Amino acid sequence: MVLLSGGMDSAVTLAIATRELGLDATCLSFDYGQRHRGELECARRVASALGASSHRELRIDSGVVAGSALTGGEPVPRDRPLDDAAIPSTYVPARNTLFLAHALAEAERLHAGRIFIGANAVDYSGYPDCRPEYLEAFERMANLATREAVEGRLRLRIEAPLLRLSKADIVRRGLGLGVDFALTSSCYDPSTAGAPCGHCDACRLRAKGFAEAASVDPRVQAG
Amino acid sequence: MVLLSGGMDSAVTLAIATRELGLDATCLSFDYGQRHRGELECARRVASALGASSHRELRIDSGVVAGSALTGGEPVPRDRPLDDAAIPSTYVPARNTLFLAHALAEAERLHAGRIFIGANAVDYSGYPDCRPEYLEAFERMANLATREAVEGRLRLRIEAPLLRLSKADIVRRGLGLGVDFALTSSCYDPSTAGAPCGHCDACRLRAKGFAEAASVDPRVQAG
Repeated sequence: MVLLSGGMDSAVTLAIATRELGLDATCLSFDYGQRHRGELECARRVASALGASSHRELRIDSGVVAGSALTGGEPVPRDRPLDDAAIPSTYVPARNTLFLAHALAEAERLHAGRIFIGANAVDYSGYPDCRPEYLEAFERMANLATREAVEGRLRLRIEAPLLRLSKADIVRRGLGLGVDFALTSSCYDPSTAGAPCGHCDACRLRAKGFAEAASVDPRVQAG
Repeated sequence: MVLLSGGMDSAVTLAIATRELGLDATCLSFDYGQRHRGELECARRVASALGASSHRELRIDSGVVAGSALTGGEPVPRDRPLDDAAIPSTYVPARNTLFLAHALAEAERLHAGRIFIGANAVDYSGYPDCRPEYLEAFERMANLATREAVEGRLRLRIEAPLLRLSKADIVRRGLGLGVDFALTSSCYDPSTAGAPCGHCDACRLRAKGFAEAASVDPRVQAG
């Protein structure tokens, strides 16, 4: 089970699952009323290019994740200092908990033992639900939650292979696995019709990664 | 924040929140494709009768909770021994994790510090996500997941006031708080058009509770 957003981190995570570990990967993407909806189309293309066995898109009731700059009317912050310790307005309440809860239900239904998530706690926006202590606590809870785990048939693992990598390391890892970054979209800004805005956290972290890896982002080149 | 199913346990939990503790209660109910859909109408009536400040119904993508006797085509088990240690086919994968994840998002949005759930681990069907160790693990995870918790503004508590009560104690507690059990529906069987079937786990645990409390269930009387 691989959570796939359509961005670069989850694409590299899927490539690790399929191309490096040779796993049979079922991908899940979520329509949660995000304004940057182009990422769902990217997720479909990435799943197909990286050999996912299947790909499902699930809906999350958009009422519950209202109030973020990613889902509401507030503009996405531009050119925010990346070393700012405050959690920005693009934070979506309990987003990874909602994603992982759905993945847990789906994993139990399909008897999958591992849930992969592209969470990163190095070059990131400080979202609390990307940190290792959060992911460990989710894993612990998950193993008390399900029939499969409690009856001892399956111990569930939350796998976050990018957790402690820099954005440059993620770019290099992806290039090494043949990930076509042109298929991925990271930008939070819905107004640029798919081209990276260059000013939101996600664009700037991505640009920093490609620069430090001395590589060129095919999305920027194309855009 | 009170999770409200329309059954007796969550009704008593809501009464504890509003009538005993005097809290301002926002109720959440979930449409997850359950076949016993009458419970959603019961939840609306219970919320109103017990003085909830508001009541929202959220949808959970029905694809993710398929495969249970409560959501699929398989019949609901009848007259199963209540001391059977096996988790029955009415188990819905990760249901409470999905419910609590939505409640967590909603709690953060509304700055609510307590999530009430009518989970019971005494007279119950053995669902793993009703046990105290599960609820404690969820609470721990939740306090690592959200901006409110991580920035130290709000410590979230999962409150399960019925957790260690017998079904008879729950009946007595509800009667003491003036809960009108005629408004609640516990039956899992969708084929009886709202009347209790008397044979599913939920009906039989409820009947056991009323019998042991030497009380009469107004639903059975009416039906």
